[in-house]
Parts: sequence; structure tokens; C-alpha cells
Amino acid sequence: MSASLEIPESMRCSVLRAAGELEVQQRAVPRPGPREVLVRVGAVGTCGSDVHYYRHGRIGGFVVREPLVLGHEPSGRIVAVGPGVDAGRIGQRVSLEPGVPCRRCRHCHAGSYNLCPDIVFFATPPVDGAFAEYVTIADDFAHPVPEHVSDDAAALLEPLSVAIWAHHKAGTGIGSRVLVAGAGPIGLLVAQVAAVQGAAEILVSDPDPARRELARTFGATAVLDPAADAAPEVDAFVDCSGAPPAVLAGLRAVRPGGTVVLVGMGADEMTLPVAALQSREIVLTGTFRYANTWPTAVRLAASGAVDLDRLVTGHVDLEHVGDALSPDPAQVKVMVRP
Amino acid sequence: MSASLEIPESMRCSVLRAAGELEVQQRAVPRPGPREVLVRVGAVGTCGSDVHYYRHGRIGGFVVREPLVLGHEPSGRIVAVGPGVDAGRIGQRVSLEPGVPCRRCRHCHAGSYNLCPDIVFFATPPVDGAFAEYVTIADDFAHPVPEHVSDDAAALLEPLSVAIWAHHKAGTGIGSRVLVAGAGPIGLLVAQVAAVQGAAEILVSDPDPARRELARTFGATAVLDPAADAAPEVDAFVDCSGAPPAVLAGLRAVRPGGTVVLVGMGADEMTLPVAALQSREIVLTGTFRYANTWPTAVRLAASGAVDLDRLVTGHVDLEHVGDALSPDPAQVKVMVRP
Amino acid sequence: MSASLEIPESMRCSVLRAAGELEVQQRAVPRPGPREVLVRVGAVGTCGSDVHYYRHGRIGGFVVREPLVLGHEPSGRIVAVGPGVDAGRIGQRVSLEPGVPCRRCRHCHAGSYNLCPDIVFFATPPVDGAFAEYVTIADDFAHPVPEHVSDDAAALLEPLSVAIWAHHKAGTGIGSRVLVAGAGPIGLLVAQVAAVQGAAEILVSDPDPARRELARTFGATAVLDPAADAAPEVDAFVDCSGAPPAVLAGLRAVRPGGTVVLVGMGADEMTLPVAALQSREIVLTGTFRYANTWPTAVRLAASGAVDLDRLVTGHVDLEHVGDALSPDPAQVKVMVRP
Amino acid sequence: MSASLEIPESMRCSVLRAAGELEVQQRAVPRPGPREVLVRVGAVGTCGSDVHYYRHGRIGGFVVREPLVLGHEPSGRIVAVGPGVDAGRIGQRVSLEPGVPCRRCRHCHAGSYNLCPDIVFFATPPVDGAFAEYVTIADDFAHPVPEHVSDDAAALLEPLSVAIWAHHKAGTGIGSRVLVAGAGPIGLLVAQVAAVQGAAEILVSDPDPARRELARTFGATAVLDPAADAAPEVDAFVDCSGAPPAVLAGLRAVRPGGTVVLVGMGADEMTLPVAALQSREIVLTGTFRYANTWPTAVRLAASGAVDLDRLVTGHVDLEHVGDALSPDPAQVKVMVRP
Repeated sequence: MSASLEIPESMRCSVLRAAGELEVQQRAVPRPGPREVLVRVGAVGTCGSDVHYYRHGRIGGFVVREPLVLGHEPSGRIVAVGPGVDAGRIGQRVSLEPGVPCRRCRHCHAGSYNLCPDIVFFATPPVDGAFAEYVTIADDFAHPVPEHVSDDAAALLEPLSVAIWAHHKAGTGIGSRVLVAGAGPIGLLVAQVAAVQGAAEILVSDPDPARRELARTFGATAVLDPAADAAPEVDAFVDCSGAPPAVLAGLRAVRPGGTVVLVGMGADEMTLPVAALQSREIVLTGTFRYANTWPTAVRLAASGAVDLDRLVTGHVDLEHVGDALSPDPAQVKVMVRP
Repeated sequence: MSASLEIPESMRCSVLRAAGELEVQQRAVPRPGPREVLVRVGAVGTCGSDVHYYRHGRIGGFVVREPLVLGHEPSGRIVAVGPGVDAGRIGQRVSLEPGVPCRRCRHCHAGSYNLCPDIVFFATPPVDGAFAEYVTIADDFAHPVPEHVSDDAAALLEPLSVAIWAHHKAGTGIGSRVLVAGAGPIGLLVAQVAAVQGAAEILVSDPDPARRELARTFGATAVLDPAADAAPEVDAFVDCSGAPPAVLAGLRAVRPGGTVVLVGMGADEMTLPVAALQSREIVLTGTFRYANTWPTAVRLAASGAVDLDRLVTGHVDLEHVGDALSPDPAQVKVMVRP
Repeated sequence: MSASLEIPESMRCSVLRAAGELEVQQRAVPRPGPREVLVRVGAVGTCGSDVHYYRHGRIGGFVVREPLVLGHEPSGRIVAVGPGVDAGRIGQRVSLEPGVPCRRCRHCHAGSYNLCPDIVFFATPPVDGAFAEYVTIADDFAHPVPEHVSDDAAALLEPLSVAIWAHHKAGTGIGSRVLVAGAGPIGLLVAQVAAVQGAAEILVSDPDPARRELARTFGATAVLDPAADAAPEVDAFVDCSGAPPAVLAGLRAVRPGGTVVLVGMGADEMTLPVAALQSREIVLTGTFRYANTWPTAVRLAASGAVDLDRLVTGHVDLEHVGDALSPDPAQVKVMVRP
Repeated sequence: MSASLEIPESMRCSVLRAAGELEVQQRAVPRPGPREVLVRVGAVGTCGSDVHYYRHGRIGGFVVREPLVLGHEPSGRIVAVGPGVDAGRIGQRVSLEPGVPCRRCRHCHAGSYNLCPDIVFFATPPVDGAFAEYVTIADDFAHPVPEHVSDDAAALLEPLSVAIWAHHKAGTGIGSRVLVAGAGPIGLLVAQVAAVQGAAEILVSDPDPARRELARTFGATAVLDPAADAAPEVDAFVDCSGAPPAVLAGLRAVRPGGTVVLVGMGADEMTLPVAALQSREIVLTGTFRYANTWPTAVRLAASGAVDLDRLVTGHVDLEHVGDALSPDPAQVKVMVRP
């Protein structure tokens, strides 16, 4: 381990012991292995999946059986490097892509590494996450960011990546008409990325009027109240709500030959109008994380095309992670600063 | 109208007056309009949709309100041409692509003419079909076929097109592993096209053992009894059954990043495992007829790569169309020869 | 012909009699045929190909043998409609897509109608163009534009379409790094469309410092003097110069797996570094006009995402078309207003 | 290192000391590192690049400065495994994909690992190849093959991969019309893969009549003498000759919207008809090795769809590698059996 910055022996981290039980613990600072870097964490976004693990102790088949550190949207600064990594990277500010794939399976070979069955993903049992003072990660998943990108923004390249990936699957581009259901952080970023891509119409649907107003400031050209408004015809529908009625309404709005991308997690099963999907040759798919999005995400944040800091509505320290993981409709994105 | 072959004043055609009521009528031979050709029909395939109209008098929103000539898989010989068509085409053997689009909407402009809302499609109320001695059609939808392709085979370029289009949507190709549910004419042709494309594994699932055996002769490398066998992992699943259990079983078999194409018409709605579709980023779509498939279909039939005559298990004349439209599990494809 | 607006019997048009010889003639106002509209021309852009015909009387194999009306970037207002067109369109402001394809060949069927061998294209011998008070065109190639889009902007949807098509071929999108050679009207619009699409870096190269400064106002994030500056690595290179040295420099800048799109017309032949192209698997192609771009172009102009009026540096009437076709480096785009 | 098969301390290998100077040397058997396997080589194809290094001591910028073992088309049997590899693989027959990429650069992340600048490729200075009794390689680049695939065929999955990759770039498929220039091993396999994919017309051009006859047995539906025959219109042209006249003739044959793929290495530069390429929107690209082709290649060889053994016209041992690398027009593919 090569290190020019002072690194303590131990660090604090926030540990989920069971549903609803978070505790700050002292642990040894990890040491970077071969081709790994040690990162002093600057900021970590809190996400719906963190909230879900905190409340339920599980997400589907992923069960918290051992104490688990949550947090998978981290940024920070490299403070040490393991064997095989250029020591010149020490001091570099980075955004962490929180899943490191096996690099050897057919999905990794083919560039679809998000589908790697052996991916090691932060804050997914039994892999610890980033609500900690230090984390290690493979050097190529610590993406350099310029100094003028804030720690918060660098952390939020993760949800930005979710949005970029959704558009990649949706096949949207210049002049597209896009419908987004759900104006949470992901929905807002999907709208924002649509705007950056030159979409001609960006419709955001959300039952909450405050969220709808917020959506306007993130690129929505029109907003819809799902209880009252039907969507006009669109080229693509991106669901960020996970709500079956929203999915059905979105499907109805998609033009023949258009696409539906399910990003929000909702019910395991859904009753879908398959005959309509067939006769209009609609393409329906879903996203699972992302692949190869950070280079684009870094450029968008660096150029100011996407303003991520504006998503942040609060900050907590490691002692108050529980507060950040308790739903509060007034909050959009609460950041943990270890 | 320019014509070198003798054409009578009137012709016989088989008319569906109401569900279950077919009648042979005498009608005037139609005259080809500008850029149209008149075709003396050689053979017409009978299809599930003909059967459905015959039994129920409707398919979904398409209702037989006026007497209707069924049949949308015709071949024949050009016997006259309308203004603007090269008279040299008289005598030419042709396979008819039975839907003529508007040529002016965005779908037509973009090459997705099967999605044209104004397409005029044979045997779809109120447009008459081809169970008749003569039909007219736009010259560019009467595709020339070589003399050595039989009338039956030329007619069956229509279901072959359905299969080609399904593979186009499925993204299959050399080395693919493909699962096909349903070994009716379409399923058999989907298997056959998979074989022609160099698919490595072609699994056909059907509850009927005789159909399964038939599938082996159409390219299946293995057959499955849906009541007993689970499918191994495949790259693409093409449903030609319309049966929800088959669709669900097929979905389960598709690898992460794979595709599902729904060709068979079944229930309007289906309950689908959307969470699994999301986490494996499966792409699900359906097909509605076909576009730009005839050039390929003609080549495959002409080269012998696909043997369509082998699908044919019976022939009837116009007086016996009702027999051909009465389901008989021993039949694969019954042809009408006017 | 159905017409609610007053239409004279004859009109003026600018006719190219031979290289360098333009003359204003009086001709009969054309009458719209079936499915055609008659348009009173509002503005017509002048383009390099008009200049070339004016100076040389030919472009490659296209030779001006009969008197020819130039101009293929027209906008205007529908003043009459032919049979089969909704009379409600009379009064509608439109941008004309100046090539009407045959609608029946394989290219038209497949959506690549720009490759139709029988396309009837304005101002390409022997087809007259739009430097005239009135023109007719197929109704579906007269694209409606909102009232707030100016005549000039509506006309300039044609070069905008060239730029949209170039990006379509280049595969550029959000986060792309794009190099554009040549800061004429097309190059500026290629830069502008790159910006609208969220390209991260937009480098424009031009020997003229004034053009380089102009490029900055059309979205260039950096400009290059080809005599002095080497381009950094880019994902895509779009040549709008037709100059072999620019093409070679651009090719060198493209990353492995990147694309080169040749838009500018230059030499018939060019010596290219094919070994480098192979070892880096660069994809090289060219564009010929455009297909299916107007819907996007209209949306971009209507939303203000692209400001086309800013390209216009001068106006002439039909008597002064010759002035507009005489190269003047101080001009970007001169419009003819009949 | 875990090994159940007897492995000697040293082995023989054929070493290129300088242009034209091959020598059999005794070297230590290499030991598999972490995630590597040790393979006893069964067969190695000889390739044009081996011939080129043997004759000239270099290929372009790749210069043989230190003694080099040639050979990059190996098959064999795993005899030992390094740390992290399942010992159950010992005894497994494998085909080696001879380039192991860095797994960490953007190209590797994106699945285009053939473009990895740090790829370690057999028999490319300074990396030794496979004309040796034993080689080591990363476990995931040693692809299992069934027992019924011969050593020769398993070795020839490498040139088969070149052909598969060429078709991937060419976008060919069912019903395509393909022109192949050059009936060497690669050209023959490109023809063969076209046939397996269901191409409708496969035209092979070669000046040598014997090669043309051979091409017929590898799937060519017609053969051309470049000195006498012009090619009809095709959808794709794959050059496997590297000869500029063949490339120009092929380009002329490609239909508007078609593709040209340059596989054969020839001149560094070539004068190309760019104006014709533009006006027909032809896509021109080249291939550099391959990526993600082995799974398909294994399936094609295993199913018998492609018969690789038939390419083999001779065998030599390590002492006679020089003979195999001396051009002999009567030979198609000479295999080295260490």
C-alpha cells in the first residue's frame, strides 16, 4: 500500500444490525488489495434501497443476515493505492461506481457487466457499503472527477447513471417525446437527462403537486396529475414509480413502435395489456443498475449540463443515518457525510 | 387495363356472410387501378385468423358486418396490369403481400409500414381477401417468384414472413439458442428460419407429441413437452402459442439480456413477472404482421433453404373453404385452390 | 384544386439558362395534382449546390441541359390543395422537404427513401426548384410549422435536416466528443445539433478565424485552426468541408471504434489510411440528403432549441438570386424571398 | 498449481530469432499464475501473420527484436490450473482465444476488448505464441470444446472467429447477398459462415481457379474471376484479399445502404471512391481480431454446421514450422502439432 496522506488505524462506520437498528461502530480501515484504491469518503447519497433494507431488513431474496454497512452512492478522495496502481492517483477526487463485476463471465466480456452474476455490489448483503469513513474499490471503478464537481454531485453520479442507462434502453434522443412517471430523484434525473439530450417533450407525472413543480425545474416541459390528466402520445415511457397504475397509463401513451422502460421497483408481477403491446409492437424492458455510464455522467456533471447539487435537500453525519433513511416527503435527496 | 391473357367477366369467390356461413358467389372480376395488377389466384393459405372470423364473426374490434371474402395468403399469376405498370409483368408468377399501406404516414416513411393506421389488409373487415378466382393489388406488393416455386409455396411466403419478422424482432442469429412455443404452422416456420439462420439450439415446445415430432423435421434440435420438461437457458423465446403458461415458462428460460417475442395472439392481458424481467433486463415485444420481409422470403423459398410445400397437408376448392376452416388437429396447413 | 386564397395565373421565377446565366421569367402557376399542395413560397435558402450549378452548370453527372429553376430549401404557405388533400390545410405554414421518392422501391419500403433511385428532387436537373413564387409538392412532404417559426427558419429546416442526419449516421449522443470540420452553414448546424444532443465536447475546425468565432456561438466548446492545432481524441468526426486534409486529420482524431461521417462533397476519390481504419475498427460512411428528419427538425425549431434565424446574413429577391449565388465569405446564409 | 497430469520440467518450442531464422529450443514449462491454466498444445494453425513475421521480422510497427515464439491459433488440453481456477477443469479440451485484454479500460468495460490497447496477444512481439508444447492463458480465454471436435478444428476456431466477427460488422444475415474477395482460409470461412447464416447469394472472387472451385465447397453459390467477371449487386462486401483492385471492385458492387468490411491486411493507404460511397451511403469499416466470438464458434464447430477439418491440408511438427510458414499455393491451412 502506497500512501502519502495520513490514514488512521480505525474508522467509524454506520452498521445495520437488523431492520431498524443502525449503530456507529469502530472498525479497522481497510487496506487496498492489488489494483485497488483506498478512498476517504466525502459524501454518500441515500437511496430507496437503503431505506428498504433499513425498514425491512431485506429486499426480495437479498436478506441482511450479518451486520451490514449500507450506502452505495459514494464519492471521496483517494488516499492510498494497492499494488499495481499508479501512486500518482493519491489525492485524486473520485466518484465510485459501486459494483465491481467478475470481469470473466460472458456478460462482463460482452460489456453488460451489470448482469454479471458475481458482481460485488456495495450495500447488498453480504457486501458492505459506504456509510463509512473509508472504503476500498477496484481502481477502475473509482472514476476521477474534476475539483469543481462537489462531493455531493460526485456521489450523485450514481443515480445519474441510473437515468442515463434508462435512456439508453429507451432509445430516446433528440426530438423525442418522453413520459416519466414518478418525480423522485430518479424520475427527476430521467427528466433532466431527457432535456440534456434534446428531447422535444418531457412529460412528468406524479401525484404530488410539489413534486410536479420540482419536475418543471428539472426539465419537464409539462407535468401531469395521474388522477386527472391523460398523457398525450409519446415515443418512450420511463417508469420511475413502480406503481402498476402508472405503468398501465404509460403503456397506453406509447406510440406504435415505441418503448417502455421499467426503472422503478414495484410489484413482482403485473397484469399487462399484451395484445395492445403486440399490435403496436411496443418494446418493453427494465433496467438493472447500469453499465459504462460513468464516463458520460462525469462529463455531464463537469460541464454543468446536469446540476446534481440542486437535488440535495439535506445532510447528515454517520450518527444520523437513521434520520436520513426515514421517509420524509419534504426531502428529495439526503446525503451522508462521514 | 392491359391484358394479354383471357379474363372472364365474372368470377367465383367464397363469401363469409356471418359466423359459420360461407357461400360461393359470382362477382365481377375486379379491374386493376393505377399502379395495380390483376392476379389470377393460384393458391391461398388458410390461417388462424380466417378460422377465427369463420367461427366468431370477429377478431377483437374487427367485426364482420358486411359479407367478407376471407383469405390473406395468396399467390398466383398476373393476368392484367393497370395504368403505370409495365405490361411485361403480365404472365409473371407472384406472391402477394396482403397489406398495402398508405405510403404517406410517419410509419410508412420510416419503413415500419406494418404499423400504418390506414393499411388496407386482405380479409380484414371491410376489406375483402383472396378466396376468389381473381384479386387486384398494388404492383409493388405482388412480389415475383421464380417458376420453380410452387403456388402453395408462393402463398406460404406470408406465414414465412411472420417467422422472419419474429426473428428480426428477437435479434437471433448465428449460434443463438432459441425456444419456440407452439408447433403450428407459424411455430414450425419460426423453427425453420432459426435453423436457416444457423441457430445453435432450437427448442420447440408443444403439448401434442405428433406436433413435436413434426417440429424435429422443421429444424428443432430438441423438443419439449410443456407438461413435463423445463426449457434450458436460451437467448430468445418466440411464443407462437398465445397460451399464458407457455409465455411464462418461456420468460423464465430467457437468459439475462435476452428477448421475448410474442407472435401468437392470446389473451388481451397477461400477468407477467416484471421484477424478473427488470433484474434480468429482458426485452419483451410482440409482432404485428411484418414489413420488408418478402425479398428475403422469396430468396429462401427460391433457394430451397426453406421447404414450404412440406407444410401443406391438404387442398380444397372454393366450395369447401368451410372444411378448411374447421379445425382438424391432423392438418398443418390446408390450401384453397380457387 | 380547392383554394380559398387568391392565386394568380402566372408567376415569376428565377431560371438558370446556362452556367452563370440567370433570368427572371414569367411562368404559369403550377396546379397541384392528386395528393399535392400548392405553396406560395415564403423563403428559400441558397446552398452550395445552387452555387455550384450556377457557376459550372453541372454537379458531377447532373448536367443542366434545359433551363432550370434552382432552390431546394423552401418554406411558405399552402394556398391550394389537389384532389385527396384536406382543404383544411389551406393557409397552413409549411416547410418543404424537397425530395419526393417513388414510395414503391425497396429503399422507400424500408424507410431509406433518400436512396430511392427515382426520387424527384427540387433543383436537380431536370426537376425545377423553388426560386419561384409558387411550387407544388406531395402533401406529406409539406411539413406544418407553427406560426412562431419564421419563414427563414422554416426554410432552413432543410440544412438542419442534413445536420440531424449526419448525427444519426455518426451515432452521437449525450456525452459524445465530436469533431466538426468546416464552419459553413452545415458545419455550424452540426455543431448546434451536437450541443442540443448533450455532446460533451464539440470541436470545430476551420481555417477562417471569423468562422471559428462564429462556431463558438453555435455550440462549439473549442475551435481549432487546422494549420496549427491537432484535434484531441473524439468519438465521432463529421466532415463538412470536403477537404482531403481535413478528412485525414479528422480520421486521425477518431478513437478506436469511433465513426467518421463525410457530409461535405469534395473530391470523387480520396487516399485514406485504411490500415489505421482497420486496426481501430473505425466506421466510415457518408450522407446523401436525409430521411425522416423533418419531424425532429420541426420540433427543434419550434421549441427554440435550435436558432436558425441567426444563420441568416442576407436576403435577396428573385431578381438578385445571382448575387446570392456568388460566394462572399462574409455571408453565412443568404435567403431568397420571392 | 494444481495438476493431475504428468508435466515435465522443460518443453520444446519453435523460436523465431530473426527474419527467416527458426530454431527449436528447450525452455521451462511455464507455470499458470492466478486464474490461469496450463495447456498442453494439441494443434496450432499457421496464419498469414506468422508467415509475415517469419519472412520480414515485422508487421508494420510490430518488430521482432527478441526471439519470439509464433503461433496464435492453438488448441489443447488443460493439464494444470493456477490459483483460483477449479481443478475440475484439468483434463478439459480447450480452444484458446489468443488475446487476453486488460479488463479495466473503457474498451474492455464496453465489451470491445479487441480494441484494448494493453491486450496481451500471442505471437505479437514481445509476447510469445503457441508453437510450443505448453502454454498458459487466463482461464476464461481457454474455451471448452466437446471431445468430438478435433484438435485441428478447435485450433481453427480462431480463423472462424475472424469470419464471425466480419459478418457481425457487415450486418449480414438471412437472405443477404454477400461478396467475398479472396478464397484463402479466411475468405473460405467467411463464405462458410455466410452459408450457415442463410445468406441467399454468396459470391467468392479469387484469381486462382483452384481456389474458386474450393470456394464452391465452402458455401459459395457462385464464383468470380476478378480478371473477367463483374460482381452483381450485393448487400455486403467482405474483403479478405487486401488487394486494392479487389476492394475497389467490391465497393462498386455494394448496393446503396450496404456495407464494406475490410478484413485482409494490405496497403496502409488506399485511394477510395468517397463520392460514390457518400451518394450511396455505404458503410465502410475494418476488423481487428474479434470479440465475444468463441461461444458462437464453439457451437458451430460442435454442431457440425461448420466443417473446419476440411480446411486442413497438411501437418508439421515443431521442427518443420519453417516449412509450414513458406508459402505454398497448394496448401490451404497447415497445422503445427507440437
